Amino acid sequence: MKNVTGLRCVSCGKVYGPAELDYTCPECGTRKGTLEVLYDYESSGQEFKEKVHEGPVTDIKRYSPLLPIENLDNLPPLRIGGTPLYGFHELTDELDKVWIKDDSGNPTASYKDRATALAIAAARQKGIETMTCASTGNAASSLAGLAAASGMETVIFVPAAAPEAKIAQLLVYGANVFAVEGSYDQAYDLCLEAAESYGWYNRSAAIHPFLVEGKKSGALEMADQLNWDLPDTVFVSVGDGSIISGLCKGFKELEQIDLIDEAPRVIGVQAKGADTIARAFSRYDGDEVEITDQSASTIADSISVGKPRDIVKAVKYTYENGGCFLTVSDDEITSALIELARERGVFAEPAAAASYAGLKKAMNKDDLGDSEEVGVFITGSGLKDVSAAKRGVKGPMRVSPNLSEVERALDESGLSFES
Amino acid sequence: MKNVTGLRCVSCGKVYGPAELDYTCPECGTRKGTLEVLYDYESSGQEFKEKVHEGPVTDIKRYSPLLPIENLDNLPPLRIGGTPLYGFHELTDELDKVWIKDDSGNPTASYKDRATALAIAAARQKGIETMTCASTGNAASSLAGLAAASGMETVIFVPAAAPEAKIAQLLVYGANVFAVEGSYDQAYDLCLEAAESYGWYNRSAAIHPFLVEGKKSGALEMADQLNWDLPDTVFVSVGDGSIISGLCKGFKELEQIDLIDEAPRVIGVQAKGADTIARAFSRYDGDEVEITDQSASTIADSISVGKPRDIVKAVKYTYENGGCFLTVSDDEITSALIELARERGVFAEPAAAASYAGLKKAMNKDDLGDSEEVGVFITGSGLKDVSAAKRGVKGPMRVSPNLSEVERALDESGLSFES
Repeated sequence: MKNVTGLRCVSCGKVYGPAELDYTCPECGTRKGTLEVLYDYESSGQEFKEKVHEGPVTDIKRYSPLLPIENLDNLPPLRIGGTPLYGFHELTDELDKVWIKDDSGNPTASYKDRATALAIAAARQKGIETMTCASTGNAASSLAGLAAASGMETVIFVPAAAPEAKIAQLLVYGANVFAVEGSYDQAYDLCLEAAESYGWYNRSAAIHPFLVEGKKSGALEMADQLNWDLPDTVFVSVGDGSIISGLCKGFKELEQIDLIDEAPRVIGVQAKGADTIARAFSRYDGDEVEITDQSASTIADSISVGKPRDIVKAVKYTYENGGCFLTVSDDEITSALIELARERGVFAEPAAAASYAGLKKAMNKDDLGDSEEVGVFITGSGLKDVSAAKRGVKGPMRVSPNLSEVERALDESGLSFES
Repeated sequence: MKNVTGLRCVSCGKVYGPAELDYTCPECGTRKGTLEVLYDYESSGQEFKEKVHEGPVTDIKRYSPLLPIENLDNLPPLRIGGTPLYGFHELTDELDKVWIKDDSGNPTASYKDRATALAIAAARQKGIETMTCASTGNAASSLAGLAAASGMETVIFVPAAAPEAKIAQLLVYGANVFAVEGSYDQAYDLCLEAAESYGWYNRSAAIHPFLVEGKKSGALEMADQLNWDLPDTVFVSVGDGSIISGLCKGFKELEQIDLIDEAPRVIGVQAKGADTIARAFSRYDGDEVEITDQSASTIADSISVGKPRDIVKAVKYTYENGGCFLTVSDDEITSALIELARERGVFAEPAAAASYAGLKKAMNKDDLGDSEEVGVFITGSGLKDVSAAKRGVKGPMRVSPNLSEVERALDESGLSFES
């Protein structure tokens, strides 16, 4: 990784060598001591600009000059990133265009594959065979799937109440799965302890500095797909805070290497029942991030995080970006999920639809300022949590296989169609 | 559609004008009278070759010179096709390489989006507002999702026993759904009757000649991704018979326009409990296709078809291709699903894993002849039917959130890991 110049603690600012630490700053601990990957922006920026002007968007490999990858061959042999960006016109009189970055088509159907890919590449570089993580579900299935494709073993810790599809995905991929009778936050701490005890390489949120780098790739890719002409504001759901940190860092780096004039404003969306980062942000004045964890409760399982692990980066980076946080209720999330599917044809899981709920809320509150274009990151497929989606819809019309029953059901429902 | 020269009945051979009929040959009926789309291969082939030599694979629009699309703007505003093709080395001593064409990343997570896109473009060209289809699930969610993105209404008929995720997808997309208490085959006939009665535009399997054209795009895309150097043999699961018909036609057209020397041999894989096409093929001698329908039964719901609607094309095209059919048991499908996830990182639904089960079977039977490379089409995401996937795996290890329980569970399970 000749492009990486060091790892800097986000809290104390101490700079470590590029390969000096695997995880967090020993002085500030696992929670506050998350590390930032530093690059030589002059040479990396030049290389980056050359690479992104060759041909179209493909996958995350395209952004390797600004990613911590020693050897591209260590990435999983599946297509990570290269997901579509859809533009929709005429949302309202005020707003010209909504860009939807749909990451549900990644190999394991979530944005998490972007981060997992980098952690796997780092592990393979070190010759490591077993990886672990705790996860609300998506990071887990991402690790299980991409590790399987890479010939590695995994040990996964998920809350026992994770959606059926997410646990099934893990088991099918051959992961060794612990269903922890407790919250995600408890599963996380248990995994941390087990990883230290057994020496497993840990891909849990925030612990590994490369994860935010992988998550950054979504920002780079959106900019690339728009020919470096980004929307004014982007919305993203926030659980542990790693994706929003990655987006802020990615946009900032594009400024630093002069590919864009100004980063979009990044708005983080949390569930009302899991708003630890939003609360910390509201108290933040540029000095120390004050953390008051909570017991999380929301239908959006992927962001049902009471003790967010990337809170320091998320608060600091969003503050520096000029962005903000807002919160949405479970009902708002469900409505957004339905609207997104019916009006845009994108079926998102609840946590992913939260970002769209945030956009709707900001529009209603006239909170978008002068924004003419906005971007929304969809971070996971609706197929991951079908039971949540079903809350927002009526069931099908049951009929026997004869036309008179169809006619009766149509009459009863008041439906009429023109051909 | 200046490139389309006519529509020919696959049974009687009568040629109709390009816009003369919407569905099937009135003389041969809906079952045997499926129509083939004919092109002016000289001019279309030239245009096709020019287009595919400009830049990399994007989506199905790239193949428009050989597709029946009047106006590309009528396609749904989502990315259809452009799915990854993964190459895996060293499968066995005999076989050098397996190519996996993973279509689970399409907008609604199945191969069906390729066909639906063309039916929607045709409907929009005609100013039609309501579409219908009967489906085991994937064609239905495909129509519901892509129609939603295109601002159209849908009425969908599915067997009431379709997997939960597939029905939920429909409802979330806003489709008007009839859950028919009966088989897929009964739902199909009911939909046909309702479509005629209400004048809805019908996207059910095989009825519309453009569907096979959309399904053809997977063959064109695989060839394109391999720079027109295709594997010797390809495997694909077969339900109604439209996808295999599309693949055979696509490969043949690439021969006709001199982009490839020889079409790969196409092997259709059916479930043992739903093998109507395989049985018809075994009796076929190049003359008339004899059909004996059955009552279908398999865990692979997407190919649980007893009365396959594209049987005439599937049998004739596969015969002409030099391909064949084989059948696999539900246990073989489940094993293939697990192996595909664990060794390749691709999580397929049972019907999609059937194609991989077919490959395994052909390898065991030494049935691959001189094939050095094979291709496998994965036609739907495993997230579509989680309950089927769970049959093949043990559940997770339940633990309280403390390390001693993890240690005990690891000891009991006999697992040991190196870091």
